[in-house]
Amino acid sequence: MTEQIRTVGIVGVGLIGASLGMALRARRIADRVVGMDTDPRALDAARRRGAIDDSVELDRAGEVDLLVVAVPPAAVVGVALHAAETMRPGSILIDVASTKGQIVKELDGRLPSGIRYVGGHPMAGSAGQGADAADPSLLTGRPFLLTPTGHTDPDALQAMRTLVQRLGMHPILLTPGDHDELVAQISHVPYLVAVAAVNAAAADALPLHGPAFTDLARVAGSSVDLWVQICGGNTAAITRALAAVRRELDRLEQALAEETSLRPVLESARRRAHALDPGEVSGIRKEPT
Amino acid sequence: MTEQIRTVGIVGVGLIGASLGMALRARRIADRVVGMDTDPRALDAARRRGAIDDSVELDRAGEVDLLVVAVPPAAVVGVALHAAETMRPGSILIDVASTKGQIVKELDGRLPSGIRYVGGHPMAGSAGQGADAADPSLLTGRPFLLTPTGHTDPDALQAMRTLVQRLGMHPILLTPGDHDELVAQISHVPYLVAVAAVNAAAADALPLHGPAFTDLARVAGSSVDLWVQICGGNTAAITRALAAVRRELDRLEQALAEETSLRPVLESARRRAHALDPGEVSGIRKEPT
Repeated sequence: MTEQIRTVGIVGVGLIGASLGMALRARRIADRVVGMDTDPRALDAARRRGAIDDSVELDRAGEVDLLVVAVPPAAVVGVALHAAETMRPGSILIDVASTKGQIVKELDGRLPSGIRYVGGHPMAGSAGQGADAADPSLLTGRPFLLTPTGHTDPDALQAMRTLVQRLGMHPILLTPGDHDELVAQISHVPYLVAVAAVNAAAADALPLHGPAFTDLARVAGSSVDLWVQICGGNTAAITRALAAVRRELDRLEQALAEETSLRPVLESARRRAHALDPGEVSGIRKEPT
Repeated sequence: MTEQIRTVGIVGVGLIGASLGMALRARRIADRVVGMDTDPRALDAARRRGAIDDSVELDRAGEVDLLVVAVPPAAVVGVALHAAETMRPGSILIDVASTKGQIVKELDGRLPSGIRYVGGHPMAGSAGQGADAADPSLLTGRPFLLTPTGHTDPDALQAMRTLVQRLGMHPILLTPGDHDELVAQISHVPYLVAVAAVNAAAADALPLHGPAFTDLARVAGSSVDLWVQICGGNTAAITRALAAVRRELDRLEQALAEETSLRPVLESARRRAHALDPGEVSGIRKEPT
């Protein structure tokens, strides 16, 4: 079956939804992109930014070949189930939430069988929020994680891989469980350690901030609403990843005063940091099947 | 006494030394800037970048009115004592090391009485290294910490405050002990938590890195040579600041699954991060006298 994705619907035209819309339209991947959002100002902004051709109500999801659910994590399941009531059998639904275990399990179990669901997570973002901050270049070269399960339609998965590549992103396949474990380590806990470092500094110290603190503060300054939902949706993996950070802090503290112990720990971090070349991203795959 | 600073010597024309030289020359704060460095390539680079008028040997420090010692922290005391042998009585010596307690104590005690020493620490930097990465805009608007003691000549201190302001930076006065305590919290430990987060992630997770990890990796990727010396020179304050981060991580872990507990912790970090407007820097002073 060759997948024809002519019309894409995007529910939630915030930073990620609108950036995807802009990329889909600019790269002519879809003939038509329609936006759906409970906030009319977000739809206006998305239209102004060129992220959508038009806006429609969620109950017109029957018009789309692909529905991208880009609402906050805690709202994904509800919105997807509601939209599915009017979606055509055979159409594809993908979400873009930062946690996958719970969401994929619920949608695999509860969506009508005709709706072909693929769990997704584009690893992109910025300090900005909303459609006004949307920018398709946030996506370029970034990983787009896909989390198929035994319930996932292979043709729909293949269509999403192709779509991700046409967006200029790198599809990486993971089980939902592996996704949550790895993303806790690479995203959720890095955010939390930045929060901890920013909160730990005495108020007197803040005016002395240099470039390192500024970088951490950029991380710690992102949307609390989003992070509360992410933390609530991935508590177990985050707790495990926090324990690993604590072990690293122990190791650093023990090594502090002794150059021969400290140097290899710092060298390891520096090597890892410098190896984060975006060109490497495409070289690694974890294929769950 | 009106201080006349016509000739400035910079020992160590790396990132900070050369950036200071560029700013001193571009803003016509000094008539002449001479560079001193054991590495002739560094001097060539500094000359190319317009950071120095010329290079001289360290034993010609008698030509300068102000000597800026911008070598790595572990070398500061040795270089300063060596240079002081040929410096003219009444001339000023400032260092720019990131730790102050030990260095200031040694130099206060060991420099000839005619050399007027002021401990300094410009809070500036970048991912680059060396004179090739030097850029006077790294300094603009940043804090320049000064750490006078009972040994410090008041006129020399005033001259350094004026110089810092003419560099477009914000002078902040601190005792050496307060400096090390606050900088551990705002710079040294933020670096170490970034190192911990980068080292704690599984190798499998690294290709999935998003913007938060990229920001932490930038911090963790800076010069190991420098950080080994900083950590060795500020172990006690760093250990205390690490304990504060650990307490914040405990608080986060306990709050993880419960939105009403988690939200205020995340909100606090976000507020602090958004309040780091550089315009605020000039508003806060800790005057030790």
